[in-house]
Amino acid sequence: MRVNPGLDGVVVTDTEISEIDGQAGTLIYRGWNVDELAVRHTFEEVVYLLWNGEFPEPSELDRWRRKFGSGCLSDRQRQMIRLLSPEIDMISVIRTILSSLGDSSFLWPPTAEKGIKLLAAIPVIIAARTRSLQGKTMLEPREDLSFAANYLYMLKGTEPLPAHVKALEAYWILTAEHGLNASTFTARVAASTETDLASAVIAALSALKGPIHGGAPSHVDDMLDKIGSVERAESWIRERLLGGEKLMGFGHRIYKTTDPRAEALREVVRAGAGEEPWFQLAVEVEKIALAVLREVKPNRQIHTNVEYYTAAILKAIELPRELYTPTFAVSRTAGWIAHILEQAANNRIIRPSSRYIGPKNERIRNN
Amino acid sequence: MRVNPGLDGVVVTDTEISEIDGQAGTLIYRGWNVDELAVRHTFEEVVYLLWNGEFPEPSELDRWRRKFGSGCLSDRQRQMIRLLSPEIDMISVIRTILSSLGDSSFLWPPTAEKGIKLLAAIPVIIAARTRSLQGKTMLEPREDLSFAANYLYMLKGTEPLPAHVKALEAYWILTAEHGLNASTFTARVAASTETDLASAVIAALSALKGPIHGGAPSHVDDMLDKIGSVERAESWIRERLLGGEKLMGFGHRIYKTTDPRAEALREVVRAGAGEEPWFQLAVEVEKIALAVLREVKPNRQIHTNVEYYTAAILKAIELPRELYTPTFAVSRTAGWIAHILEQAANNRIIRPSSRYIGPKNERIRNN
Repeated sequence: MRVNPGLDGVVVTDTEISEIDGQAGTLIYRGWNVDELAVRHTFEEVVYLLWNGEFPEPSELDRWRRKFGSGCLSDRQRQMIRLLSPEIDMISVIRTILSSLGDSSFLWPPTAEKGIKLLAAIPVIIAARTRSLQGKTMLEPREDLSFAANYLYMLKGTEPLPAHVKALEAYWILTAEHGLNASTFTARVAASTETDLASAVIAALSALKGPIHGGAPSHVDDMLDKIGSVERAESWIRERLLGGEKLMGFGHRIYKTTDPRAEALREVVRAGAGEEPWFQLAVEVEKIALAVLREVKPNRQIHTNVEYYTAAILKAIELPRELYTPTFAVSRTAGWIAHILEQAANNRIIRPSSRYIGPKNERIRNN
Repeated sequence: MRVNPGLDGVVVTDTEISEIDGQAGTLIYRGWNVDELAVRHTFEEVVYLLWNGEFPEPSELDRWRRKFGSGCLSDRQRQMIRLLSPEIDMISVIRTILSSLGDSSFLWPPTAEKGIKLLAAIPVIIAARTRSLQGKTMLEPREDLSFAANYLYMLKGTEPLPAHVKALEAYWILTAEHGLNASTFTARVAASTETDLASAVIAALSALKGPIHGGAPSHVDDMLDKIGSVERAESWIRERLLGGEKLMGFGHRIYKTTDPRAEALREVVRAGAGEEPWFQLAVEVEKIALAVLREVKPNRQIHTNVEYYTAAILKAIELPRELYTPTFAVSRTAGWIAHILEQAANNRIIRPSSRYIGPKNERIRNN
């Protein structure tokens, strides 16, 4: 009997949502290259694509876009956000508020309409909680702003720079979906019991909190802080590499060549560099880092990963570190919902087996 | 490439917790037959066994028992219970309150001490919410009562009948653990990211809410209600079976012979029948039902399943139907925690694969 801890290589489902090719350095959603999507499309369009398999018609897109601004909180939810202990982490806050809705609005079967209602609520919760902790008024999404712009607006109370909005949107598009990682698989297993959509997303959020889940930007922002200026970059990086340290933001477990998500973010960040000094710094430091890496580790192919530019973007929009994982959760919720919809379309309850290796039942009537 | 929807027969882990043998009609926890455990042991002892692999020493047992009474609510939690909409289901209430704790008390790695804190909170939450909806004062567990007795006491405000306590306790022991069902597997997948213990249990609760999860007693209680007296049983049952209907509470997907859990519950219910008229009725109706089944379906081996006696017990303790699944969740939380502890002892992140069958990336630069 073969035991498969981790289920590595065990194929649990056919999927039409995405394909990762680590050797070729490509990631596609529904047949589209993600770098193409991130540079040329909006997050709202990509969510539609992920859930429906096609881009929306222009008339449909307008209706669809408006739904992203529908995530308002009830008085009860605002009270609850204020009541939660200031110590609890933001993923727990999101999860608590989603859980407090009960299941009546999200009952099986899941649909795109239910999905958008759930997805739209998450940035509103994050922003409301952030402002509540700062003693500021909670804000509602503005009709004239995009989903990404509204997130920054609701957090800060001022209209964000276009370069910041475009960068956040590209980051969200690129991180919305990445196959059967542990949180996405958790969503599918939970959904396979025909539980409500909110519950399947809550299960996924609970897995995303795990420190080895990955996907949230790690400590690249520390590195950019410490480097601080282009002039200091080369000596700082060389010193670290010669001291045997790893360079954060470079190298990837799956992508053996360029990470398509890093490629796309570089393009967006470069385009906004005139508006944003952190973008300028990130682009220059990357060039230097790659040159030093080639020199110090000539036999290894090390490329920039998605976390490198993510850190630059999250620094530029001045997001505090405790909002990194929650901000990632916004886009990944779109991916979870795509998988929940796919699971529902052809559902079978997911119940693997285990092999018992404990004591046999010799103890009957002997105690 | 083999695709395994449902992961049927795929062995994902070795386990020392339990073994189900559907052909033999046995279920063992850590080497002990469950019927033995249910008749001769307390729920507190069985939880210890499930989590530690052995029964506690007498000195340890005393310390352990006291912890089961430690599930008190903070003022903040009581406020939150009152604030939640009266419409939301009880599993959402439990999950919301656990989620509102944040992760600081339950951080990885999971331990039995953290587990007991979490498990002890659940009946207190259920009882507090029930009484809050009834406009009654929330009660705290009493030091002199067992875990099962405290649940009934906190719900009703009066000391429960010994026959009811023993029956509830046997039900909890028998349903604490049943292999890698979908909620237990959800708990293990979430835990494999090294998420906190509360999060892994929240993920499992989210899967348990699914209507096809099973395990919660279905509509046997309706049947007992309709039968109402021993005299009416035979004609009522014969009429249903001859009309082609199924008899609720008989037959099981896994157990092809007697369900060991039903056998044990019958013993406990029979012992308490003098104290409780519903028990008396259930025992008599079962005899009649089995006789009629043998007569009407002579070629099929149909046995009583665990839900039959569960319904009798939950009726006897006058639990409203909306508390059936939450009451099952109390015992199953013990099983989930056993699996989370086992997963943690030898962890590997659970990330299966999918096979992409969507459009290929021909669409690059063509849009």
